[in-house]
Amino acid sequence: MVGIQDKAAIVGIGQTRFAKGLEDTELSLACQAISAAIDDAGLAPSDIDGLAMFSMEEGREVEVARSVGLGDVTYFGEIGYGGGAGCGVVGHAALAVATGQCRAAVAWRARKRAAKTSRPWAQVSQRITGHWQWSRPFGLLRPVDEIAILTRRYMHEFGATREQLANVALAFRKHANRNPNATMHEKTLSLEQYLAARWISEPLCLFDNCLETDGALAVVLVSAERARDCAQPPVYVHAFAQSIPMQHQVMTNYFCDDPLVGPSYACARLLWERSDFKPADVPVAQLYDAFSPLIPLSLEGYGFCARGEGAAFTENGALEWPHGRLPTNTSGGGMSEAYVHGFNLVLEGVRQMRGTSTAQVEGAESCLVTSGEGVPTSAVLLRR
Amino acid sequence: MVGIQDKAAIVGIGQTRFAKGLEDTELSLACQAISAAIDDAGLAPSDIDGLAMFSMEEGREVEVARSVGLGDVTYFGEIGYGGGAGCGVVGHAALAVATGQCRAAVAWRARKRAAKTSRPWAQVSQRITGHWQWSRPFGLLRPVDEIAILTRRYMHEFGATREQLANVALAFRKHANRNPNATMHEKTLSLEQYLAARWISEPLCLFDNCLETDGALAVVLVSAERARDCAQPPVYVHAFAQSIPMQHQVMTNYFCDDPLVGPSYACARLLWERSDFKPADVPVAQLYDAFSPLIPLSLEGYGFCARGEGAAFTENGALEWPHGRLPTNTSGGGMSEAYVHGFNLVLEGVRQMRGTSTAQVEGAESCLVTSGEGVPTSAVLLRR
Repeated sequence: MVGIQDKAAIVGIGQTRFAKGLEDTELSLACQAISAAIDDAGLAPSDIDGLAMFSMEEGREVEVARSVGLGDVTYFGEIGYGGGAGCGVVGHAALAVATGQCRAAVAWRARKRAAKTSRPWAQVSQRITGHWQWSRPFGLLRPVDEIAILTRRYMHEFGATREQLANVALAFRKHANRNPNATMHEKTLSLEQYLAARWISEPLCLFDNCLETDGALAVVLVSAERARDCAQPPVYVHAFAQSIPMQHQVMTNYFCDDPLVGPSYACARLLWERSDFKPADVPVAQLYDAFSPLIPLSLEGYGFCARGEGAAFTENGALEWPHGRLPTNTSGGGMSEAYVHGFNLVLEGVRQMRGTSTAQVEGAESCLVTSGEGVPTSAVLLRR
Repeated sequence: MVGIQDKAAIVGIGQTRFAKGLEDTELSLACQAISAAIDDAGLAPSDIDGLAMFSMEEGREVEVARSVGLGDVTYFGEIGYGGGAGCGVVGHAALAVATGQCRAAVAWRARKRAAKTSRPWAQVSQRITGHWQWSRPFGLLRPVDEIAILTRRYMHEFGATREQLANVALAFRKHANRNPNATMHEKTLSLEQYLAARWISEPLCLFDNCLETDGALAVVLVSAERARDCAQPPVYVHAFAQSIPMQHQVMTNYFCDDPLVGPSYACARLLWERSDFKPADVPVAQLYDAFSPLIPLSLEGYGFCARGEGAAFTENGALEWPHGRLPTNTSGGGMSEAYVHGFNLVLEGVRQMRGTSTAQVEGAESCLVTSGEGVPTSAVLLRR
């Protein structure tokens, strides 16, 4: 049995601009981000022979390979479940290069809101088939409705408050205000604005929700050996884990003993088992933030605090750069930089390890990046 | 860099019955086959923590996990491109167990013709979007039409004949006649019947086409160490390769210097590089046979004969058990056992290595299994 600890490294990152209503197709956005990541790595398109993608994406492997001008591809695979897949595709690419199935892999996510596949919950067919037939007709129409239920339970059980959720939104907005590429770069956010915002699904207001963004991001991975010769400092995939907990139900995991114990718990257990670091060693994190309450839940799941203490953890600027215990989503995250199914979190993790974040945590040796909570998920621990 | 040679083994196989018009859903069929494979391995459902599936499949990982009663799942991934994915999901499962991302993985394919996703080419949307818009409106309506074009070129360039294609169909039918689980178990096929059959897409007649089958098959993989303690003799994944050749176009790869050099060439090069065996060492093969001409093309691509000699290779019963040079598709294959996107070929490869085929090649130490030709593909070399 051979683990893949530090055997693969991210050596290239690339992204498009972020906006609502970009004209390019999802495929074109993907190709632009991938090309930029290949350039950043100092490689040629023909060097790329591995592809790890979201199955939800419109452009397929052959189209990406043909359009970007890749060489013979010797590894390709997909992961489902949207926001749960971000770290998953990075990890699968790492597995592929670590085992020699390919020499240089790209993992990416392009997302265009108008694309048919990018908001599956918004399609009629998804409301009346599969497990959603048990909740959609009864009012849980959007992901935000599904998470609102969990949030109520969390408030009820542990006394979490709206002010604590605001800590999340405000911290990430401050980080976005430092990041020129963030959608919300120019817009500040105050507690008063947060508390006065309209409900989207009570108890979640406008600012508890992620943005809706068109855009794409990509990373290039090679083996640790090869990474030493690349243009950029290598960022190692120190540990990787995926999780679908037993009897899991996507986004409506209510029918179990403890709905507040989400996939992050099982994913975290594996991740730390495979890691030389412990949560206390990790000085910066990029946590999947489609909705603000996912942050306290993930802080608990990934072991930064005890069960039920995630909301309190956010106080006293704990999530804020530069002085917080755990500066989190230091580019602005899904709530204030861009929502590209969490893939921007991966690139910000890489920047933190390169020392190039606009909210750089000095001397950070490791960064946790997580994907969706409440869905089949994944996480990577990056290392300098 | 660590290869995965012999690091994972198939220790369980399971399948449903094969028929047209089974009543169960694709998900149900998948669960039945997976449960049977877990039983065969002597494991409990809760032992399974890895899932590798066709992205084309209707049932998703969470549903399979919940319905079969799996434990916490720690690896999951998908592969696209239908018939190209069979060996791919086996290989990805092998990667996952070899690297310790999971301890026991299942790979499977369930296919129901009535399922929306199982015949993508038959959907209107697939005729008018993507690359098919360049061929569908001009008469290449079905996969058989696309392969008929290649077949004409092959006949033109190398003098291949219908009698040589018949060698393929007749050999596989003879094997099916020995296999009680084969759809065509009771039906013999003569050269006269073959030559008198109606055209499906000239020069391909009825018997050049695979069956259309509802059914499901699954395999269970564990690490080589653990395999020693399992109920069944381990069948090692000796080598695994995937391929999307440069500038590949799915099923209509006509616009290149040499359309008869398909993905099998690039896939084969990688596979043999990773293997201790050479084609001459391999005494039995399961070659993807959605259409009979794919067999000579694959024989060439995988190096069992020189370019252009695949059709002649089939003569003198070379593909037939027990005396042929390379008994091929010894359960009947896609053309006479069942067409489940080539996954039945994987199980027959395992049976050959276990010594339990109904057309058992005595003393076989290795078996090649390939997936779709003309699409992004994959292959595994199994070892006893």
